[in-house]
Amino acid sequence: MSSRAQLKFLRCMCEMTAAQGYTPAALSRGLRDITPEAYSRLRKILIHMERSSCLGDSLVLSSQELAANKVLTRVKTKELEAGFQNPSKFMPGQHIFDVLQKVKESPLFRLLKTMPKGGLLHAHDTALCSTDFLIDLTYRENLWICVGETGCEAIAFRFSESKPADIKVDGCKWQKMCEYRECHGEQKVRSYLQKRFTMYPFTNFVSADEAWSKFVSIFQLLDGMLLHEPVWADYYYNALTEMHADGVQYLELRSVIPNLYALDGSKLPLANTVQIYKTQTERFQELHPDFIGAKLIYAPLRGVSPKVVQKYVKNCTDLNKQFPNFLIGFDLVGQEELGRPLVDFIEPLLSMPEHLNFYFHSGETNWYGTSIDENLIDAILLGTKRIGHGYALVKHPVAMELVKKLDIPIEVCPVSNQVLQLGFDFRNHPASMLIANNVPIVIASDDPSFWHATPLTHDFYFAFLGIAPYSADIKLLKHLAISSIKYSALTKEEYCEGMEKWQQKWDEWIANLTKCDLEKPE
Amino acid sequence: MSSRAQLKFLRCMCEMTAAQGYTPAALSRGLRDITPEAYSRLRKILIHMERSSCLGDSLVLSSQELAANKVLTRVKTKELEAGFQNPSKFMPGQHIFDVLQKVKESPLFRLLKTMPKGGLLHAHDTALCSTDFLIDLTYRENLWICVGETGCEAIAFRFSESKPADIKVDGCKWQKMCEYRECHGEQKVRSYLQKRFTMYPFTNFVSADEAWSKFVSIFQLLDGMLLHEPVWADYYYNALTEMHADGVQYLELRSVIPNLYALDGSKLPLANTVQIYKTQTERFQELHPDFIGAKLIYAPLRGVSPKVVQKYVKNCTDLNKQFPNFLIGFDLVGQEELGRPLVDFIEPLLSMPEHLNFYFHSGETNWYGTSIDENLIDAILLGTKRIGHGYALVKHPVAMELVKKLDIPIEVCPVSNQVLQLGFDFRNHPASMLIANNVPIVIASDDPSFWHATPLTHDFYFAFLGIAPYSADIKLLKHLAISSIKYSALTKEEYCEGMEKWQQKWDEWIANLTKCDLEKPE
Repeated sequence: MSSRAQLKFLRCMCEMTAAQGYTPAALSRGLRDITPEAYSRLRKILIHMERSSCLGDSLVLSSQELAANKVLTRVKTKELEAGFQNPSKFMPGQHIFDVLQKVKESPLFRLLKTMPKGGLLHAHDTALCSTDFLIDLTYRENLWICVGETGCEAIAFRFSESKPADIKVDGCKWQKMCEYRECHGEQKVRSYLQKRFTMYPFTNFVSADEAWSKFVSIFQLLDGMLLHEPVWADYYYNALTEMHADGVQYLELRSVIPNLYALDGSKLPLANTVQIYKTQTERFQELHPDFIGAKLIYAPLRGVSPKVVQKYVKNCTDLNKQFPNFLIGFDLVGQEELGRPLVDFIEPLLSMPEHLNFYFHSGETNWYGTSIDENLIDAILLGTKRIGHGYALVKHPVAMELVKKLDIPIEVCPVSNQVLQLGFDFRNHPASMLIANNVPIVIASDDPSFWHATPLTHDFYFAFLGIAPYSADIKLLKHLAISSIKYSALTKEEYCEGMEKWQQKWDEWIANLTKCDLEKPE
Repeated sequence: MSSRAQLKFLRCMCEMTAAQGYTPAALSRGLRDITPEAYSRLRKILIHMERSSCLGDSLVLSSQELAANKVLTRVKTKELEAGFQNPSKFMPGQHIFDVLQKVKESPLFRLLKTMPKGGLLHAHDTALCSTDFLIDLTYRENLWICVGETGCEAIAFRFSESKPADIKVDGCKWQKMCEYRECHGEQKVRSYLQKRFTMYPFTNFVSADEAWSKFVSIFQLLDGMLLHEPVWADYYYNALTEMHADGVQYLELRSVIPNLYALDGSKLPLANTVQIYKTQTERFQELHPDFIGAKLIYAPLRGVSPKVVQKYVKNCTDLNKQFPNFLIGFDLVGQEELGRPLVDFIEPLLSMPEHLNFYFHSGETNWYGTSIDENLIDAILLGTKRIGHGYALVKHPVAMELVKKLDIPIEVCPVSNQVLQLGFDFRNHPASMLIANNVPIVIASDDPSFWHATPLTHDFYFAFLGIAPYSADIKLLKHLAISSIKYSALTKEEYCEGMEKWQQKWDEWIANLTKCDLEKPE
C-alpha cells in the first residue's frame, strides 16, 4: 500500500470513528508499521461499531434481564456451535417441512415459545389456525364436499342443508362430507386433508409461480368451509386462542373481508363479517384480560382494475365509519408478480381519507428492478405505515434510507418467504441486512396454517437463529417484541395499556428464565 | 398519516432529493392531497435516484455504444421477459449443472462470450482448464494412476518412468494409466473422469462443508498430474489460450506455488514454479499481442500456524525479489470456515514489506457474525487491495462503507458461490446489493474448470441477467470490464497500454453489435 493510500485509509477511519465518538488518538498513524497492540485496538473499535449499529443493540438491560440473557445465550450458542460443526444439522439452513418436528424439540425453540412476543402484525384471515382445528371443522353438520372426477380430490366445500346444487364448481360433484369420510375411511381422509390444507410436501417447487398457484388453491378450497357465518366466528376465535398460547398478545389482521353466507345460502353484508371479528375479539378479551386486542386491515385482492380499487376505497371508508378504531387501514393482497403494481392505482388510492392508513405489501419478489420492486417506492410515497415483506428493499438503498428516516417498519415473514420460494437458506434472508443497518422490522408469520407452523414462534426461531448475527441476544428479542406494539395501530392510550400488559408477561418470562439452573447438566 | 408525519415525510424527501440536486419546488407540498401528476413527478425523481446510484450508471456512452446497447438490451430483455412469464425456465434461478448446455445456447450468452471482458482477477492455479484438456493430459507418457480398492476409483496420479512406489497414498495401488484405460475401456474412463475432475453431478450437497470436501478432493487428485514440470507449463499455457478465446485479456492468478517434480521424482524449488508462469506468459504474449499480460498472487493454504505464515511471508518476499512486478501480492486460500481467521496471523502479516499487496479472501460464508465475517474487518485493516468473494460484506455496513470510501473492489464469483453452496438463486446473490450501492466490484470465475464453465462468460451471464437489476445495460458491462483493468496490479504504464488494448477490442465488439440487424426475424 502506497503512503498516499495509507493516508487516505487513515483519514477515512478517523472520519468514521470520530462520527461514533472515538478520538483520532485511539487510532494509529500507520498501517503495517503499527504494532500488533495498536492494530488490536483499531480492530476492536471497528467491530464494536459494527455490533452497536445493529437493530436493538442500544437497549439497556436490567440486572434480571442480564441474568436471563446468560441462559438464553447459552442455549442459542450451543445450537449455533453444533450447526457450525455440522452444517447439515443446522435447521435454519434447511426447509421447514424437513425439520418441523425437530425444530419443536430444540431447547431454543421451547424458550422462544414461552416468550411474550407482543403483537402479530402481518397475518391473513383464513391462514391462521392449526390443521387439526380445520379437520375438526370438517366434522360439522351440513358440510358438503365437491369431489373431483377421481372420486378422491377435494375441490370445494359448502355448508348447506341440502345438496348445494346452485353452487357450480368445475369438474367435481357434491357429496356429503360424512359420506366422503365413510367411503374413504376416516384415517385416510384425515391424512389427505393434513396435506391438502397445507403446502406440504413440496419443498422444491420449480418456481415461486408454482408455489403461489398451490398456495392460492388452498385459500380457494377453504373458502367454502370458512365463509359460513358461524364457522367464520369460531375459526377466528380459535386463531386468537392459538396465538395467545404461542405468546402473542395482539393481532392486526389483514382480511379480504368476504361476504359470508348463511346455511340457506343467502349472502350476508360485509359489515357482518367485520362485526364478527369485533364481537369475537371482545369476547376473547373478556376471558383473557392479558390480551391487548386486535384490529383489522381491509386487504382485498390486487389483481383488479383501478375502478374496483375505487370501490375498495369506498368499502374501506364505509366500514371504518361503522367500525372506527377497529377497521383501521388498507392493503392489497395476492401475488405481487402477477397482480397489478400499485402505480396503476394511484388515483383511487390518493382519494383514501387521511385517517385511514396504508399497510402495503411491497417488494415480495426477487425480480430485481421490476415494477414489483417499484411497489416499494409507491408504498413509501403513498405514506404506508408499514411494509409487508419488503423482501427486495435491501436492493434499493434510496428506499431503504427513506424507510429508516421515516421509521416505517418492515414486516419480515421468514417462513413464508421460504415456502413461497423467494429464498431457501435463512442465513441468506435479506432481513440480516435490515438488522445490520438498524432498519425497523417486526417478525410476522403471514400464513402459519399452511405450513403447520406455530402462530409466531417458528418465525422467531428462524429469525433469531438463522437471520440475526451470532452475537444477537435477548436485546434483539425484546426490541422485536416492543416494536410489534410500537408500530401497531393502537391509539396512544391503548398503546400504554398494551405495553403494560406486555411488560408484565415479559417480567414473568425473565424471572422464569433466570430460575433455569445454569449448572444443570443436560 | 397525521399532518406531523406528513411534514416529516416531506422534510426527508426534500433533504434527500436536494442532496441529489433536485429543487424542493419539484416536490409537492402534501401527500394524499397532491394531484396524480405531482405524485408522478415525485415518483420519477425517486426512481431516477435509485437507478442513477447503481454501479456503472454514470458512464456516458458514445453514439456507437448507444446503438450497440439497443441490440444488447433487446436480447437481454427478451430473455428476462420470458423468464418472468415462466420462472421455471429462467436460468439464473437454477443450478448451473442443470442448465449448462442451455445457457450456452442463449443469445445473450453468445453476445457476452464475444465481449472483451478485460481481466480475470480471481482464479486459482489448477482449476482453470477445460475438462477435455485435463483428459487429454491423461494420455501422456509415463502417467501412473493410484486406483482404489474397487479397482475403479481414481485416488491419485503421478508421472514416473517406473512405478512410483515411494509415493505412498492410502488405500490405493499404482497402475499405468494406459493399462487402467485398457482395463475399463476408453469411453468409460473418459466419462468417469468427466465427472471426477469436477463437482458434477451434485447440485444438492447437504452443506457447504460437504461441497468443500468434494472440492478439495479434486485439487488433491489433480496435483499429482499437474505438478509435473512440463505439464504445469502446458496447463498454464492452455489456460491462457482458453481465457483469451473467452474474451479475457489479462490474468491475475492466485497460486499456492507448489514445488513441482521432475520425471525422476526430484522436487524442484519454488522459484522454478514461478519461472514457468513467467516464461509461459511471455511466450503467450509474443504470439498474442492483444493480450495484456498476467501477474501472480502467492496464495498458500490458510489452515496453518502463525509460524508457517511467517514462512509464507519470507517466501513471498524472496520470490518477489526474484520476480519483481510479476509476483506482486499475497493471499491465503482454503475454506475460510475451517481454516484459521486472519486475526490469528496479524503479527506475521504486519511484517510483510509495504510494496507487496494483500488480496485477501474474506467473508466467503453465510454464517453471519462469526470470525469468518470478521476476516472482512482484518482484510480492510491490513490494507487489502481487493477482497476475494466478500459474500458477507452486505451484512456489515461499516465494512461496506470503508470498502466504498477506500475503493476496495469485491471480486464477485457468482457460479463458485452457487456450487460451493453459499446460495442458490442468483437473484438473491448479495452482489445485487453491491451494484445497488455502487460498491466497486469485478466479476471473476474462481475455479471454472470444476464446473465445466467457460473461463469467465458464465459468471458474466449470471451476474448480468440474474444479479443485476432489470435496467442494467451495456454501461454496467463496460464498467465491469474497465474495473477489471483499473483494479489490477498493473503499473501505471502497463495500465495505459492495457486499456488501449482493451479499448481496441471493445470498439470492435461495439461495431459488430451495431451491425446486428435489428429487424431480422429470429
